[in-house]
This record gives sequence, C-alpha cells and structure tokens, in this order.
Amino acid sequence: MTGSVVIAGLGPGSDALVTPEVRAALDAATDIIGYIPYVRRVAPRAGLTRHESDNRVEIDRARHALTLAAGGARVVVVSSGDPGVFAMASAVFEAVEHGERAWRELDVRVLPGITAMLAAAARVGAPLGHDFCAINLSDNLKPWALIEKRLRLAVEADFAMAFYNPRSASRPEGFVRALDVLRETCAPDRVMIFARAVCTPDEQITVRPLAEADPGMADMRTLVLVGSSATRLIPRKGAPFVYTPRSVPA
Amino acid sequence: MTGSVVIAGLGPGSDALVTPEVRAALDAATDIIGYIPYVRRVAPRAGLTRHESDNRVEIDRARHALTLAAGGARVVVVSSGDPGVFAMASAVFEAVEHGERAWRELDVRVLPGITAMLAAAARVGAPLGHDFCAINLSDNLKPWALIEKRLRLAVEADFAMAFYNPRSASRPEGFVRALDVLRETCAPDRVMIFARAVCTPDEQITVRPLAEADPGMADMRTLVLVGSSATRLIPRKGAPFVYTPRSVPA
Repeated sequence: MTGSVVIAGLGPGSDALVTPEVRAALDAATDIIGYIPYVRRVAPRAGLTRHESDNRVEIDRARHALTLAAGGARVVVVSSGDPGVFAMASAVFEAVEHGERAWRELDVRVLPGITAMLAAAARVGAPLGHDFCAINLSDNLKPWALIEKRLRLAVEADFAMAFYNPRSASRPEGFVRALDVLRETCAPDRVMIFARAVCTPDEQITVRPLAEADPGMADMRTLVLVGSSATRLIPRKGAPFVYTPRSVPA
Repeated sequence: MTGSVVIAGLGPGSDALVTPEVRAALDAATDIIGYIPYVRRVAPRAGLTRHESDNRVEIDRARHALTLAAGGARVVVVSSGDPGVFAMASAVFEAVEHGERAWRELDVRVLPGITAMLAAAARVGAPLGHDFCAINLSDNLKPWALIEKRLRLAVEADFAMAFYNPRSASRPEGFVRALDVLRETCAPDRVMIFARAVCTPDEQITVRPLAEADPGMADMRTLVLVGSSATRLIPRKGAPFVYTPRSVPA
C-alpha cells in the first residue's frame, strides 16, 4: 500500500504564505480534496483530480480521502490556515479512529500552515505576544455553556484571546453573547481586533475598544482578537500598532 | 525616510517551512538582525550585513533595528517560529513605544511564521484540534504565581495547552512545579507530547501519559503540548496518532 493522506494548510489566503513543504505536497498529489474555495486555490494540471465538497461534510470528506489513499492515491486534504486549528486534521483522525482498521496503518501526515490568528495578529503588531488562547465560538459542535465557561476562565487568566468562527448567518447570537460576557468582565477600553478575510484582496482590519465593538463587525470570515488587560495601542499617524508586552511585573 | 523594519518568522527550523513572503523580505534586506543561530540561517551575500546578538538582549536588538531603519536601512529582524508568539515582535513594539518619537512613523511590519506549537502538533496528529492556550513557562519576565494561576485556570477550562520555554538550565524548577500542578489537577492518563528541536535534524518527539512524564524530558529547545481531557491516542504499528476531537457532546 503506497497511498498517503497529507492534510495541508494553505494559510489564510495569500499564496505568499503557503510553505514550500505544502507546495511540494500539492505538486506531488494525485488527488486534492477539500471545501470548494480551498480546492480552487490549487491550479488544475494533468494527473491531478480535484474533489470539491461543501462545508459541514468534514467526516465524509475525510473518509473519502482515506478510501482513495487505501487504494494507492497520494491525497492532499487542503485546509485554510493551519489544518490542526479548527480545520480538517481532527476530522481526518476521527475518521481514522472510527473507520476501517487498515486506515490506521496508512501514511497520514499533517503539514502546518499559517493560522488566521497569527496572520491577523501580524497585521496590527503583536497582540498575542504574551500568553493567549484560541476558542472556536461556533456552538455547532459544543454547547454554548462550555464556550461561556471557557470565555470567563480565559478572562480570569488574563489571556489574550483569538475567536475563530465568531458568527454565522444561521447562528448570529453566539457572538452577541460573547460580547456580553466580555462587557461584564473586562474594562471598556479592552482592545479588540476584527480581521476580516485576512491576507486576501477583501482584507479589512478594524481595531476598536470593547466599548465600541458591535456584533456586526464579525462574520464567518472574521477572526476576532481580544487583547489581555495589558495590551497596548501605540498611537501614530497611520493605523496604531497593537501589542502585548512580554513582561508582567511582580 | 525610506527605511523599514520587518520582523520575520523563520518557522521552527526547516527551510521548507519558511514562507515565500519571508523569503522575499530576506532577499530584499540590507541588514539582518537577530539571535545568533537565527541570523546564521540566512546565507551571506553582497549588500547584506548580518548582525548577530546573544540571547536576552531583545530590547537592545530592537533599538538597533529601529536605529538602522531610521537611517534608511531595510532591516529584517529574524525570529524563530512566529515572531508574534513569545519572540521578537513584542520587543520591537516595546522599543517603539518607549523610544524616539520618530520611530512610531517608521514602516514596521510583522511577517508570520509557523510557530513551534503548530509544527509539534502536526508531527503527532491534531492535539490542538479543539480550544487551546499557549503559555510561556519562563518566569524570567513574569512571576511564577501568575504562571501557576494560568495553568490552573487553563486546566479548569479544559484547554489543550502548549508550553513554550518549559525549562532552562538556570531555572529548572519551573517545569517541575508545572508538572506538579498538572498531576494535582489532571488524570494520570492525560496525554503529553515533548517535541524537542522540532523540524530540525535533532528532532525528537516523545508522547507519554502524564503519569510517565519526567521533568528531564524538557529543555529550552522543547515545546511541550498537553492534551485536553478529551485528547485521544490512536494505537497503530507506528507511532500513535494523537488528536483532540472537534466536538464536545452536550
């Protein structure tokens, strides 16, 4: 059995953020599998079959990849950002664990990518320069009570925070509730960054204090960063720099 | 004033993880500044001055970069991993905030890189596939009491965790204490991953349950990952896959 599954991170959008390792895997693939817009980032060529699938069919997609690999294909499952951060890698391993016994012995590898929170942070400075956490705000796969508990503990720990999937059209209320928790637990000048479609032609970065944050500033293409209590703005003629100092005095 | 400071992430070690964006910045630089081993990853060439500095002089290095840029140089400050994660980006913005007023108007940009926790996670599967946090265990820049508080809250939130700088020769006791906190608060089968020198020729990855974790498994070149309570091992003939499921049942 010579097939393989590589779960590769394409980064947030720009080809300038695709690592050479991922580029080489794409060039060697016989089959590319993924959500439609990610598959379309890979140019067609002879010998390559591109399999596009819709959102929310992650396990079906993973099983498809493993089936093709078991038959000898060199499959690359493409993810946006980093495949290990709220993306396809966990879905593939779930499919391995609960699928055919032979899939466990397949060559399955994850190739990291630039995840959205690092790209968004870089655009404004270094807001994640001290301890931080990443929370998926979608309550599609976990109960809201757990999300709220994590939010409150993260504020208590004074982590900077990255929120993935803050708001979908079908579930707009989650981010409204998250903002309510932040308003209850943080000072009104807490720094928030709304990074929409980061590193794409549609990129839009908005920096606001919590007091001026509005749920409409986020959609499913937005990565939201919340500074810790120590995060600072450096005023300047252009957009301010935002950073979290490395030190906390004793 | 046409100078600039680019703070660029070289990724954890392999050139195959350096983004094209970072490569282009290195190629366009007049000056490269950084910690000795990172600067040595950039090949010498005509027109490029490489400035090597020792560890623990981050603010001096940042001021040097800003001074050169203010004089017109195209400076690249090189970091391992991602510059915004426990690396040089925050130090540069600290130097900007507390330095000469003119530095604020300089063109200062951060180019993201593959940070060690993402590379380490990819090597074993997808242990960071659900909510997680990143904590710098060094008490060089913050009191141990704060580190311990964050650890306890992170366990309570059931985050997977990434520990940067777990253990230095001069301060070996921090990681011993962190293990004590984990043993007090987590089950003995909690999954731990010790990723030493990830993506370099010296790479060594060790997966162990908390009960078998030993402080000697970590040094300053090690990134430690701790699974959440839901993190799973998939046994197989080769090294087991490790992943955290995307879902938490209600």
